[in-house]
Amino acid sequence: MQASIISIGDEILIGQIINTNASWMAQKLNEIGVHVHEVITVSDTANHITQAVDQAFQKTDIILVTGGLGPTKDDVTKKTLADYFESDMTFHQDILNDLERYMQKRGRPMLDSIKSLALMPSKCEVIRNQKGTAAAMLFEKEGKILVSMPGVPYEMKDFMERVVLDRIKTQFNTPTILHKTIICAGQGETVLAEKIKSVTEALPPHIKMAYLPNMGIVRLRLSGSGQEETQLQAEINTYTQQIWDILHPKYAIGFHKDKLEAVVGKLLLEQNATLSTAESCTGGLVAHKMTTIAGSSRYFEGGAVCYSNRLKQELLGVKTETLEVHGAVSEACVKEMAQGAVKNFNTTYGVAISGIAGPGGGSPEKPVGTVWIGVANQERVFAKKLSLPRTRELVTAVSATMALVFLRRFMLGII
Amino acid sequence: MQASIISIGDEILIGQIINTNASWMAQKLNEIGVHVHEVITVSDTANHITQAVDQAFQKTDIILVTGGLGPTKDDVTKKTLADYFESDMTFHQDILNDLERYMQKRGRPMLDSIKSLALMPSKCEVIRNQKGTAAAMLFEKEGKILVSMPGVPYEMKDFMERVVLDRIKTQFNTPTILHKTIICAGQGETVLAEKIKSVTEALPPHIKMAYLPNMGIVRLRLSGSGQEETQLQAEINTYTQQIWDILHPKYAIGFHKDKLEAVVGKLLLEQNATLSTAESCTGGLVAHKMTTIAGSSRYFEGGAVCYSNRLKQELLGVKTETLEVHGAVSEACVKEMAQGAVKNFNTTYGVAISGIAGPGGGSPEKPVGTVWIGVANQERVFAKKLSLPRTRELVTAVSATMALVFLRRFMLGII
Repeated sequence: MQASIISIGDEILIGQIINTNASWMAQKLNEIGVHVHEVITVSDTANHITQAVDQAFQKTDIILVTGGLGPTKDDVTKKTLADYFESDMTFHQDILNDLERYMQKRGRPMLDSIKSLALMPSKCEVIRNQKGTAAAMLFEKEGKILVSMPGVPYEMKDFMERVVLDRIKTQFNTPTILHKTIICAGQGETVLAEKIKSVTEALPPHIKMAYLPNMGIVRLRLSGSGQEETQLQAEINTYTQQIWDILHPKYAIGFHKDKLEAVVGKLLLEQNATLSTAESCTGGLVAHKMTTIAGSSRYFEGGAVCYSNRLKQELLGVKTETLEVHGAVSEACVKEMAQGAVKNFNTTYGVAISGIAGPGGGSPEKPVGTVWIGVANQERVFAKKLSLPRTRELVTAVSATMALVFLRRFMLGII
Repeated sequence: MQASIISIGDEILIGQIINTNASWMAQKLNEIGVHVHEVITVSDTANHITQAVDQAFQKTDIILVTGGLGPTKDDVTKKTLADYFESDMTFHQDILNDLERYMQKRGRPMLDSIKSLALMPSKCEVIRNQKGTAAAMLFEKEGKILVSMPGVPYEMKDFMERVVLDRIKTQFNTPTILHKTIICAGQGETVLAEKIKSVTEALPPHIKMAYLPNMGIVRLRLSGSGQEETQLQAEINTYTQQIWDILHPKYAIGFHKDKLEAVVGKLLLEQNATLSTAESCTGGLVAHKMTTIAGSSRYFEGGAVCYSNRLKQELLGVKTETLEVHGAVSEACVKEMAQGAVKNFNTTYGVAISGIAGPGGGSPEKPVGTVWIGVANQERVFAKKLSLPRTRELVTAVSATMALVFLRRFMLGII
């Protein structure tokens, strides 16, 4: 089963916004076994939209269109599609009611341009908008479907998840596709692939494995297709378990969309423990990551950003001698920083990072990308050196992830 | 002048990566007066690529292709284009030398698949790669051009900025388009537009104004088109200066790509001053922003992430009474936090943030999105409340920007 995605909007063609909708839709379509043949972005003009729709119908059975449905004069999609499907327009009182409620709730006036959103092509199925103003339209043509949705991402996502994906599954009898994702942290895909070779090489043809790496995190996604859902689910569970048994606890940290900072937070809660941070080159990024999780105040106390050596000494008690003999980017320094955090901030665990993010500041012994991570509690302390020869941005981002990787392993007692 | 962008890659069609290349290229093309007619994403297959190229040549004069040029077997673009242009292949010793140097520098082996990158279609102009491995190809056909570049963003950008944009300008006699951007911070576009109405309403038709808002920052871009560059430049400079005079120093902070954190950093250097931070709800984001600027260690000392009230007291000297009477999210608390940073971290300036990022923790008097910002030096202290009723992520991101906005105004003595 093949689909086309048509994105309508001059704001994409002038590069003002990035087409994130298309990626999201492609991902969701793939997950239900629909292959995206192509993605095309066209301008807000009737000719261009008609041409793209016409070509898409020639090539594919499912056409998803986003954009060009608002009340402004630039948005011509509705009229163009009505013309394309040779449809007149029908007034929908229920949509007008939706719109009135929506505008009233926001204290905004009911302009004529908004009222025009209640006029819809007679030949389409109307899907009401529960997140915004413009309704979606579903047209059928010779067993094929075209769905036109607003371009606002969270409105489009609601239409897709509430109606469109299910409709595609039912109407096109798509295969049962099941996915299970294991989240791994702190190890690259090549090593992971090597470790689980015994499992992946034995996978039957209808179950595939994908590696999705991003900044120190690798998502391993098993996807199976078949007709009998219960059996397929059992198979996927078995293989997932086999991989988990190999990679957990060191590399595999969770499933589905688990985030490393949330996994660490959960572990802190389970241990009834608290955390503080002591950051140099990451400048507060680890602390910020921890606080992106709602409720993190239950276990995250805070910490120090010690960009200067003076603050490393004053806030964390790093010794002058350590800085003089070993420098700020050293095993001795991050150990004292992590221990200083535990002691001075009175937390169960402390995590410390000191490195050279570049572009300046490197030396032959300590080139740009040299980063030391330290983790401590009251009993012991661990430190590890990383070599990350990349840009300033990547050095800090990967360092922050690795700090949490080592913290987690330390908390589990496996380093 | 019209262009098409063709993005090749299954990883885009399965939604694994977002097509940021196309937006960037569209932006750059628009800046030199080239209109992007459409953007199309196709799979890594010869048929599909050929079809897209063929259609693009029918519609437009400039075709930019990215992706599908690496050494792996999935990458079929080079062969497909050679076939399309009926070209045989030529071996390029200079490219092989580039590749050998590149691999050697990274300690990677010279595989046959890498060597194959030195074979290029005879009918194309080869543009050597200065950032990666695969060279770019420029084909001409009946006065039209097609440029095929690798899909790696920083390689593509280098090709565009080093060769392709200039080539387009020369070959197609594009109009002179000049841009000048003023960066504003801490005020929304509606208010800014109102303030500079006297200038924008008097703009001649060939000079346009665009507002590009993003998280507390608004870029005001003046774009002019014409034939006579010197005169156009003078006109744009005049209008820019008029706008600058209205918006500076309070709102307008810089030009072109100036970043708020860099502007603040420059100001600190000029004043021979230092900064420390005291962050609660932003969890280190302000500190992290400051440290994204290379060389920030000259003025940024570090600071405290005081997520817990205990650390607010211990590290910043916030009084128990303040927390009990006013709470952590209060004018009194951020003032003490900012002053505590100045005193305890011994810096010229201190900036503090305390707020309710949500989703929990709100109350009728202090709903989610209530954020207090404090700025202090040894002589005085300033505090301001923000109401940001959005998501946790937006509350922290906008708060961090606003903290630097108020810090800058405080340093300039205008608040």
